[in-house]
Amino acid sequence: MKLLQKTIDMISGLDNEVMEKARVRVDNLIKPPKSLGRLEDIAVQLAGITRNIHPVVDNKAIIVMAADHGVYEEGVAGNPQAVTVMQTMNFPRGVTGVCTLAKASGAKIVTVDIGVKADLEAGCGVLMRKIKYGTDNMAKGPAMTREEAIKALEVGIEVATDEIKKGVNLLGTGEMGIGNTTASTAIIAVLGGFDPKEITGRGAGLSPEEIQHKAKVIEKAIIANMPNASDAIDVLSKVGGLEIGGMAGVMLAAAANRIPVVVDGYISTAAALIAVEIAPNVKNYLIPSHASAEVGGKKASELLGVQPMIYMDLCLGEGSGAALVFPIIEAACHMINSMITFEEAGISI
Amino acid sequence: MKLLQKTIDMISGLDNEVMEKARVRVDNLIKPPKSLGRLEDIAVQLAGITRNIHPVVDNKAIIVMAADHGVYEEGVAGNPQAVTVMQTMNFPRGVTGVCTLAKASGAKIVTVDIGVKADLEAGCGVLMRKIKYGTDNMAKGPAMTREEAIKALEVGIEVATDEIKKGVNLLGTGEMGIGNTTASTAIIAVLGGFDPKEITGRGAGLSPEEIQHKAKVIEKAIIANMPNASDAIDVLSKVGGLEIGGMAGVMLAAAANRIPVVVDGYISTAAALIAVEIAPNVKNYLIPSHASAEVGGKKASELLGVQPMIYMDLCLGEGSGAALVFPIIEAACHMINSMITFEEAGISI
Repeated sequence: MKLLQKTIDMISGLDNEVMEKARVRVDNLIKPPKSLGRLEDIAVQLAGITRNIHPVVDNKAIIVMAADHGVYEEGVAGNPQAVTVMQTMNFPRGVTGVCTLAKASGAKIVTVDIGVKADLEAGCGVLMRKIKYGTDNMAKGPAMTREEAIKALEVGIEVATDEIKKGVNLLGTGEMGIGNTTASTAIIAVLGGFDPKEITGRGAGLSPEEIQHKAKVIEKAIIANMPNASDAIDVLSKVGGLEIGGMAGVMLAAAANRIPVVVDGYISTAAALIAVEIAPNVKNYLIPSHASAEVGGKKASELLGVQPMIYMDLCLGEGSGAALVFPIIEAACHMINSMITFEEAGISI
Repeated sequence: MKLLQKTIDMISGLDNEVMEKARVRVDNLIKPPKSLGRLEDIAVQLAGITRNIHPVVDNKAIIVMAADHGVYEEGVAGNPQAVTVMQTMNFPRGVTGVCTLAKASGAKIVTVDIGVKADLEAGCGVLMRKIKYGTDNMAKGPAMTREEAIKALEVGIEVATDEIKKGVNLLGTGEMGIGNTTASTAIIAVLGGFDPKEITGRGAGLSPEEIQHKAKVIEKAIIANMPNASDAIDVLSKVGGLEIGGMAGVMLAAAANRIPVVVDGYISTAAALIAVEIAPNVKNYLIPSHASAEVGGKKASELLGVQPMIYMDLCLGEGSGAALVFPIIEAACHMINSMITFEEAGISI
């Protein structure tokens, strides 16, 4: 709790003075005003985050949190639970989706076992920070204790802070965990006051009947645990997941260290909702990426108050959407750093 | 005409056999089926284009065609016409929007004077392929002769073919030309059968009254010239632009040489409509990029039958949206080339 509180205390708002200067520069670059749209907003945001009108994002990492879910035993997922452990060990081998997509921007992938329900092979390249062997079945009781939820947040904070100390200046959040759209949907339902039936989706591939069943399990979990919507840690512990807590921790650490952090898809948005509930200023440090094809994705993004930029019907997770948006964020930096102003160009309009 | 016809004759469809193999591979990669959405489609398309299930795009160029428009004298643009020449010379200096955005993917920018209404400084780094000093005023008569329109297409073909010979394997199309949303809107109105009033937008920044005036000028140009909607070269010559012809030529050359080519925004979409009318198979070689913030952008994309992937309210042109989508296309290649299949991973589901 000490690390979590210390991190929360470090988080403050954007630097408005630097942002105003950045906005003036962006408005005077040789282009029609506002013609680079949201790229301009990103450049200004990055200036406010880094307190530098010439922000640089040249050292990128996606932190992938892996964990299992006790609620798996209710039959909410289309894949065997063992996929979590098998797939987690594939990240350091560079062969999963996000690993390959991240090559296009040269981002590093840091994989963390924060709660996989099996022992990973020693030396497999995954950071071993297991809190427990998967959450408990939230349909029957809390997914984890409050202490475990705080620990998950703190693991995220620690891993992200280590990367930032090593020079990372742009973070992305990713995950691996069979069953984690179930936990994410529960979080989003509680925090947004949604009926689970409205926002429960197919995850990694459920039939319409299975989706109905999944929604009922989520409803049951919410009724069984009665999470307190105004206490994000309570929500995380009762109907969340270890990897979701870890991701929220990464976002808290990014904000505390004034580093931009990219929200990926559905699960990452659930984590962001937790992080922003814990420390509202985290919102200023988030950069959205893609619109998840998961049914509740749109509502979740609206609840968080962010609008995705890439619409490609992705729903893999892992941080894949974050990987795709990294070069766009870099492009925004190049824009503010290398485009010249009308004055510099000797053009007067 | 000989080069144009020869190029058209070289264009054929995608390689369905290779695409089927690519689709099987993509469907078996370690992810839920279809979970990488349109990235999967791009990978399959690239396989069909390049006849290789392991496509590579490691040598990227955006060809920026610059030209002026005689219709400028009708008061359809918010900027002085001299901006075209000044800005054209800024491309080789690397300081315009697209140049800076292209840094994020390492794409080269090739700038072509295909019809700027002024002599560029010698040695400024722009390819000198001027056909004439801007088009004629289409509100009073054809923007150019049919021969000039064909020449514009052929300049595009030649420049693109040269780049392809040098090893470029992914092309993007960009432009610079004060007044060119007016010509593009005229093309789109004619080919799509739209009322110009419906699709005329603010370009580089017009007031609502100025937009009304611009729509009237477009209407006048269409009435004055009566372009034949079933003859794209006629449309290009009567209400088009030299840079738009050049861009269409780049697309024709890309298709003829089995190279993917990225459509940028509004003007590029008008050029793509011309290219596809000339040779329908060009469509298979096009990759969309961003959704233009220009009012007619959505209708133009629908008419072309492509759906943008990036929604960031850009309307700069220059090829800026193409630059942003290059890393996404690269990511699609990394996906099909470096992700492993379930079989290769030893996972059976």
